[in-house]
Amino acid sequence: MGSVSEGSHPQRVSIIGAGVIGGAWAARWVLRGSDVAIYDPSAETERIVTDVLDNARYAWERLGTTPRNEGVLAFAESLGEAVDGAVLIQESAPENLDSKRSIFAQIESSADKGALIASSTSGLLPSDLQAEMTHPERLVVGHPFNPVYLIPMVEVVGGKRTSADSISVALSFYEAAGMSPLHVRVEIDAFIADRLLEAVWREALWLVKDGVATTQEIDDVIRLGFGLRWAQMGLFENYRIAGGEGGMEHFIRQFGPSLSWPWSKLTDTPELTDELVTRIGDQSDAQSGHYSIRELERIRDNNLVDMLLALESNQWGAGLAVRKLRDKS
Amino acid sequence: MGSVSEGSHPQRVSIIGAGVIGGAWAARWVLRGSDVAIYDPSAETERIVTDVLDNARYAWERLGTTPRNEGVLAFAESLGEAVDGAVLIQESAPENLDSKRSIFAQIESSADKGALIASSTSGLLPSDLQAEMTHPERLVVGHPFNPVYLIPMVEVVGGKRTSADSISVALSFYEAAGMSPLHVRVEIDAFIADRLLEAVWREALWLVKDGVATTQEIDDVIRLGFGLRWAQMGLFENYRIAGGEGGMEHFIRQFGPSLSWPWSKLTDTPELTDELVTRIGDQSDAQSGHYSIRELERIRDNNLVDMLLALESNQWGAGLAVRKLRDKS
Repeated sequence: MGSVSEGSHPQRVSIIGAGVIGGAWAARWVLRGSDVAIYDPSAETERIVTDVLDNARYAWERLGTTPRNEGVLAFAESLGEAVDGAVLIQESAPENLDSKRSIFAQIESSADKGALIASSTSGLLPSDLQAEMTHPERLVVGHPFNPVYLIPMVEVVGGKRTSADSISVALSFYEAAGMSPLHVRVEIDAFIADRLLEAVWREALWLVKDGVATTQEIDDVIRLGFGLRWAQMGLFENYRIAGGEGGMEHFIRQFGPSLSWPWSKLTDTPELTDELVTRIGDQSDAQSGHYSIRELERIRDNNLVDMLLALESNQWGAGLAVRKLRDKS
Repeated sequence: MGSVSEGSHPQRVSIIGAGVIGGAWAARWVLRGSDVAIYDPSAETERIVTDVLDNARYAWERLGTTPRNEGVLAFAESLGEAVDGAVLIQESAPENLDSKRSIFAQIESSADKGALIASSTSGLLPSDLQAEMTHPERLVVGHPFNPVYLIPMVEVVGGKRTSADSISVALSFYEAAGMSPLHVRVEIDAFIADRLLEAVWREALWLVKDGVATTQEIDDVIRLGFGLRWAQMGLFENYRIAGGEGGMEHFIRQFGPSLSWPWSKLTDTPELTDELVTRIGDQSDAQSGHYSIRELERIRDNNLVDMLLALESNQWGAGLAVRKLRDKS
């Protein structure tokens, strides 16, 4: 393969793996007018994807971004059928290196030579994913965030053998999906987002394990506290404001020393004993068990839509992605 | 002191330390109708606090929570004058144990016996703060989040010698301020929020130090990615949804093993060399330097207000705090 096909709007997209992530990818592309063929060996595929698409349609209707014409969604009988004719193939299978490699081999045996192959992995290295491929230059990671049809960020990461062309095509495809792709320039385990998320997750597990806080308490500290800030500015821009007129350097010099304080148990990882898993499950049940997953999804999506609209009215951050999406719809 | 004065709405509040946090505490209480006396030795106090109060008034006007009657704001000439007659004294001085202890000694020599004394520290242990006090039972930590007049969370932490009564009075006072106080039941370094924030901050510093990502890129991953989610649900409730119909235990069993992967550099702390401090300062300038701090504050507040109103319309999370605030105003 000399180069993957040109970027811009992919007319035909293939989704391999139809869990929460794969289904939401399908929904986003269908709502952006692309024809989508999806394949997953599970018997549940059609029900899961239809449900996710319903959620996505409802969310986009509330956003005011309902497309004039949806793409056609097809449930393929085989992987080969799903990838046939696609210019973008998005793999969203479970996080297992061997099974993903096997999927890429199957994809390569059926896909067009010019197709871009993207993996939704949240942490496996693209260099490892592409190691056994015939045309490794067309493999990228495109790591999205749930719900994929509403969250604009997608991390784009290339491996050692990924071509620059593939990166730029991936970026333009995701732009066409109405997203805000970020090219992660250095290939590291877990990329950027999951580095941060794993750090929080690990610390949160310690807090629960040590009985310091429940899942509800931790979630409240986040969603009624700093999480509100992070929906519109990130870590550094908020700290920049905290530094006041002294700015960022003032902030770091003032608060930096606390990094050496014993404020973390991050040097070790709690063992995921059955007891701990059960405790977290129980606490989560007590916190959210009176809602079904469907109800929680609907609540979450309603909140996100209204916040996105709010941010759009301020022409800021993720609101700019909605504005762009609206201009395009 | 047998017990601190009854909870409910404190008519007279004293703020010691008038930086960004102290000024915003003053603004919240004045807008909740309490009379506030504030003291800080800095010559800038009146300007800083007046600016913060202007921001807060504007934000509350947009929220629709402008009070019928504001409290009276007084700039005291001394600490003794500031604490005289106050039922709640909120200390928001720099993060230094010795200087805070010295301030508490001064407070105790002038304050009413029944006054509750709260520290805004984000990490110093209340047991250490109260160690030299005559009436240590009335000392609590009340750790807020910037901007204090908009973010509802405040962590309430007692030390070994704090009375249960002081905790419950603190909780009722902060409720009266329209906040959503959380009683952190176990006294640990950094409490809950800063445990999580320090973990992210440390990881983010590594990413910047190693040249993996810039402050802008990290902020974008947060504010266009998972930060959007965290403004309305926390870590666990989002992961619960990610687990799909299998729920929380399914999620943990599926993703837990990645905790053992080499996905973090959290076992060590980067040295805050001048070079690193300068690099972060420069990147932050490139990212945000075209806005003044005042402009950034206004943008941030507009975003937060609109998101809070959005969440209120959904009767969810932080929106419930706004609803309560409105019912009270």
